[in-house]
Amino acid sequence: MSPLKNDTFLRALLRQPTPYTPVWIMRQAGRYLPEYNETRRRAGSFLDLAKNPDYATEVTLQPLARFPLDAAILFSDILTIPDAMGLGLYFAEGEGPKFERPLREEWEIRNLSAPDPGEHLRYVLDAVTQIRHALDSDVPLIGFSGSPYTLACYMVEGGASSDFRTIKTMLYNRPDLLHHILDVNARAVTAYLNAQIEAGAQAVMIFDTWGGSLSAAAYHEFSLNYMQRIITGLVRERDGARVPSIVFTKGGGLWLENIAAIGCDAVGLDWTCDIGQARARVGTSVALQGNLDPMTLFAQPEHIRAEVARVLASYGQGNGHVFNLGHGVSQFTRPEHVSTLVEAVHDLSRAYHLPP
Amino acid sequence: MSPLKNDTFLRALLRQPTPYTPVWIMRQAGRYLPEYNETRRRAGSFLDLAKNPDYATEVTLQPLARFPLDAAILFSDILTIPDAMGLGLYFAEGEGPKFERPLREEWEIRNLSAPDPGEHLRYVLDAVTQIRHALDSDVPLIGFSGSPYTLACYMVEGGASSDFRTIKTMLYNRPDLLHHILDVNARAVTAYLNAQIEAGAQAVMIFDTWGGSLSAAAYHEFSLNYMQRIITGLVRERDGARVPSIVFTKGGGLWLENIAAIGCDAVGLDWTCDIGQARARVGTSVALQGNLDPMTLFAQPEHIRAEVARVLASYGQGNGHVFNLGHGVSQFTRPEHVSTLVEAVHDLSRAYHLPP
Repeated sequence: MSPLKNDTFLRALLRQPTPYTPVWIMRQAGRYLPEYNETRRRAGSFLDLAKNPDYATEVTLQPLARFPLDAAILFSDILTIPDAMGLGLYFAEGEGPKFERPLREEWEIRNLSAPDPGEHLRYVLDAVTQIRHALDSDVPLIGFSGSPYTLACYMVEGGASSDFRTIKTMLYNRPDLLHHILDVNARAVTAYLNAQIEAGAQAVMIFDTWGGSLSAAAYHEFSLNYMQRIITGLVRERDGARVPSIVFTKGGGLWLENIAAIGCDAVGLDWTCDIGQARARVGTSVALQGNLDPMTLFAQPEHIRAEVARVLASYGQGNGHVFNLGHGVSQFTRPEHVSTLVEAVHDLSRAYHLPP
Repeated sequence: MSPLKNDTFLRALLRQPTPYTPVWIMRQAGRYLPEYNETRRRAGSFLDLAKNPDYATEVTLQPLARFPLDAAILFSDILTIPDAMGLGLYFAEGEGPKFERPLREEWEIRNLSAPDPGEHLRYVLDAVTQIRHALDSDVPLIGFSGSPYTLACYMVEGGASSDFRTIKTMLYNRPDLLHHILDVNARAVTAYLNAQIEAGAQAVMIFDTWGGSLSAAAYHEFSLNYMQRIITGLVRERDGARVPSIVFTKGGGLWLENIAAIGCDAVGLDWTCDIGQARARVGTSVALQGNLDPMTLFAQPEHIRAEVARVLASYGQGNGHVFNLGHGVSQFTRPEHVSTLVEAVHDLSRAYHLPP
């Protein structure tokens, strides 16, 4: 492969100098883009789209055609692993992801095994290869997975939950069962991310969407612990290039020092953290990714610029910052406002980087 | 009035010695109690119950008849103030609180005014007086209100929201309008809490349920700032006794030092904070209230005791801790498990207090 034309994202993750702060956006390929909705209509359902490498490639590239983003992220779902385990992922309209066969019985949990990515998640790996080819070395491609605990939430609850009553009852009553699920999930995620790296992913990210619903003690025991195992098991280099890893626990601001210590290269921040304070807390151990409130994008362009300026100023001078939202972009966002955001980051961040 | 028979709650809030750690439970009068559901059936709707001082007194006392709790809390709703402003509070079955006339137009916002509690919230003050009488000085009575920002969320969104898109669009686009609402709310809450104190409330608590959805900068400007104004305006003594104040921002763990600095006597913690770390951060400036994960109560009694022991051990030796859940008790909780919790706190906490 030819060298990357724009490697600012990878360099920032490794805390190397860049001329400006790179930016990408969680859920940048998604429903706020008319062209995404058009592809989805052609594909049929969300799963028909996600499971077809041609469509996945097409929608992964759509936001890059519109905005000068510094990274692409594989279009996929965080729940591909439990689906490959046979739990039957489906999407009820307006209700988010659900499983037809959530884990209810001890024997079901004992029978759980980590899927072989090359066999059961072939469609994801094919998409990675195809997207890398289509990107033509313009920007790097991010692979990803849900965290073991976040996957377990859906596997046990059967879908989203407002209180996580079922999984927390298990956590407090039968921690041995939950640890068994998490152990299988951690092995599955490690193999899955390594397979994505093998197929061409140049950085990987673990989305711990629900770790922030745990008590501090439970977070460390049931979520962070298993993410650390994954990080330890990841391939660190491919084709002579370091493959950086990003760990993002939504609502994990209280535990940043601990997250930064598990061996990842970067920590994702939601919008409730002050990124300057976060930087002071983690020191030079990791890069930080984030963290504009996604709702900022509903304001007028001048206000979006002002909020971008605030995040950049809070992070301050120097390297190690990847700009992003603090959570996925809302489906109701106007694409022109994303344009304003990306421009503002590129434009305003130069003042915080040394001239080359 | 005769002196309180059990003043451990008030003493703990003021960081004075107590023989054990006092405990009460957010939403302790509520749907998990069969006797509450029975009263509600008699009353008709939730609002018929909350607006009738006889019923409100009856349900406030129900948990105290079952459990040896160290405080009572006024049975009411956090949204009484916007209801008294004329927004039309109602409850759609299974959907939470809603307003018939949310604030949509600038002129509606400009016309907003703080209700006179003696006139428009008489039913609440009557309930306070009646509950104090019925409590017969057994334990103190807590009065409360929603925070200005949390009230504004419901007033602008018209109900609960998963992303707070409407109020955040206002926050980023028209901060002047939101500040106007918050200014009116802060004056309304101050007058309301002072009227509750006048009617007999012996401690007051501000519930900032949604402050944790804000960015760090916006939290300080739009939520904490207005809670500070309230605290500054509160009556501090009644009948020669100090009336302590508690501020609780759910999801506010990152901002504890700042919350502790606004002049309140105690800070409420949700379950994501480690209470020992929180104590180290706020020092001796305030008492702490919390913070068991409410989902712990779905575990078997021995596990509930173990989790209670963990919170007590994390807080450690000495005064200034009021035990509570980190959020309201779930309606699906078994009352016997609340019994286990209260007993465990009283029993296990003696080791952390000096013998008298």
